[in-house]
Amino acid sequence: MTTADGDRILLKHGAGGRAMRRLIAESVLTAFASDPPERAGVLGVSAMDDGGAVRLGDQWLVVTTDSHVIQPIFFPGGDIGRLAIAGTVNDLAMMGATEILGLTCSLVIEEGFPRRDLERILGSMRVASAEASATVIAGDTKVMGAREIDGIVINTTGIGQTRHLVRDAGLQIGDRIVVTGTIGDHGMAVMALRHGLQLDADLRSDVAPLAGLIRAALDASIDGVSAMKDPTRGGVAGAVHEMAAKSGVGVVLVAGELPVRPQVRGVSELVGIDPLFVANEGKALLGVRPDAVAAVLAALRGHPLGRDARVIGVCVPDHVGNVILDTGFGRRLVAEPDGDLLPRIC
Amino acid sequence: MTTADGDRILLKHGAGGRAMRRLIAESVLTAFASDPPERAGVLGVSAMDDGGAVRLGDQWLVVTTDSHVIQPIFFPGGDIGRLAIAGTVNDLAMMGATEILGLTCSLVIEEGFPRRDLERILGSMRVASAEASATVIAGDTKVMGAREIDGIVINTTGIGQTRHLVRDAGLQIGDRIVVTGTIGDHGMAVMALRHGLQLDADLRSDVAPLAGLIRAALDASIDGVSAMKDPTRGGVAGAVHEMAAKSGVGVVLVAGELPVRPQVRGVSELVGIDPLFVANEGKALLGVRPDAVAAVLAALRGHPLGRDARVIGVCVPDHVGNVILDTGFGRRLVAEPDGDLLPRIC
Repeated sequence: MTTADGDRILLKHGAGGRAMRRLIAESVLTAFASDPPERAGVLGVSAMDDGGAVRLGDQWLVVTTDSHVIQPIFFPGGDIGRLAIAGTVNDLAMMGATEILGLTCSLVIEEGFPRRDLERILGSMRVASAEASATVIAGDTKVMGAREIDGIVINTTGIGQTRHLVRDAGLQIGDRIVVTGTIGDHGMAVMALRHGLQLDADLRSDVAPLAGLIRAALDASIDGVSAMKDPTRGGVAGAVHEMAAKSGVGVVLVAGELPVRPQVRGVSELVGIDPLFVANEGKALLGVRPDAVAAVLAALRGHPLGRDARVIGVCVPDHVGNVILDTGFGRRLVAEPDGDLLPRIC
Repeated sequence: MTTADGDRILLKHGAGGRAMRRLIAESVLTAFASDPPERAGVLGVSAMDDGGAVRLGDQWLVVTTDSHVIQPIFFPGGDIGRLAIAGTVNDLAMMGATEILGLTCSLVIEEGFPRRDLERILGSMRVASAEASATVIAGDTKVMGAREIDGIVINTTGIGQTRHLVRDAGLQIGDRIVVTGTIGDHGMAVMALRHGLQLDADLRSDVAPLAGLIRAALDASIDGVSAMKDPTRGGVAGAVHEMAAKSGVGVVLVAGELPVRPQVRGVSELVGIDPLFVANEGKALLGVRPDAVAAVLAALRGHPLGRDARVIGVCVPDHVGNVILDTGFGRRLVAEPDGDLLPRIC
């Protein structure tokens, strides 16, 4: 190599952590940040939220995009097609846009890819779209030569609308952090598959579109939800770090309250990776005002995808931008992940 | 191989011709065609137009997506970044949506990709967006391992709005076919680069966003433009075939009226490929009612990107779904391309 490492893109630049945020701040925002950074009625890339938004009459049009590169493309609990729909629907939902106007699907396929795998993936996309009451209304198909791309990459972009835009930066001191269910399921299921771990226990990705679940929570208390984010790449640790930093608060998470399935805990101990840092694809983190916690929790738990919802933490005035884990024996700082521990997890 | 060729994806399935349309009809539409095929107020994938559309009050929200896989990523006249913005802006414009609400940009990058190349590409995207009065408002960044993807793939999705939706299926008998300028420039420039042809003449891609040009044409006669399509993969021959088949007319093109630059003609003769079949990235085909031709041509020619606009053909009642070339010595059928002659041209 004739250039230094800093001159080249590394895996961690796509892994949802600090390295990616720095790349985006240095390169992408330079190109795309509007000037002035926030035009009236436009929430652009400089917000670095789950998507962008444009004011349209009394509504916000919310737009989000994701290219899905997961490997392997079929895994317990789902496949790249289900992931592509869920990932985009969930990013819209995190901004309050649970009414989805349309999705797009752009396929980039390796020459020689089996037709039956493609059709299985498209079938998963159809099922997941129906679960979210969403429709794919536009598409694109490209084929690259053998060994020019590894299998298939799927971009899904979503357009939703909402009267009430929810940001990831809205946490206030005293707000509770609610997670909608168990953590680490997606990342640990993919990790177990990649490592060829033979498990007795059923370990499945949680991949699911959350539009209905989030609509239930917002209907229960539209003003009680102060912030939302889905803990994908970088896991709950990465997502809470980002929310805390943008909101200007600290967050204390209570270790004993973190819902983790026994089989996820088992793989976690086997491979030495904390479920806090592992991607989820069917979970959301909500900041909730203290007086709305009961209503929001009841609404979440009344939905099949939110049965295990619970309060896992609270926003505090000290340690701004940091995440503290209360272990019951003491408190320690949770490091912000630099990248995800698993490349191509979504 | 244990499976037959028909069971695998081939390069031609992504090349914009008959093979791609068949794959989409057999696999993609099965998954995504709404049921009933056209819900009121939704133009979905079954229309197989340049994008989808959703009715929103008295407007149509138009959505289009494209993943750009061009190789090489830098070429005379542009690069993959400029192409990504122009490709998406032009698909919106072809449906009448010259007012762009926002674009998304999703990068999939190979590990080891040079940072300075990424920044050059992002800079091109910024310039092209500004030319189209468009803003990138949401993005995504993924990194795949070395040799898991060849360089960089960029998905751009666009959202526009229009009161007056233009389709590619609206041609009527007697309508003239207008092209906004010279044909074959993009495909021939990339082909010359790939073949290492040393040319005296300046041969450059025409890649450009056409929102302003198309707005001028529609402003001149909103009811006079019956159909539009941009002749990218498959070239003018492929695009006119698709318009003719969907509209239920035949089209006679006049060979002597096709505007081709001398240097494009030169490479064309050298490599034995007709410019009619080669991709353009800064041109549009318009179906124009006879009484609106003068106004539309004047409007196009008054714009820097439309100086060479001209009538190249006419819609006829016979040979429905076919394209006839009038050579001056006689008439012959123009074959519909099965795929593009150049993989990864856009």
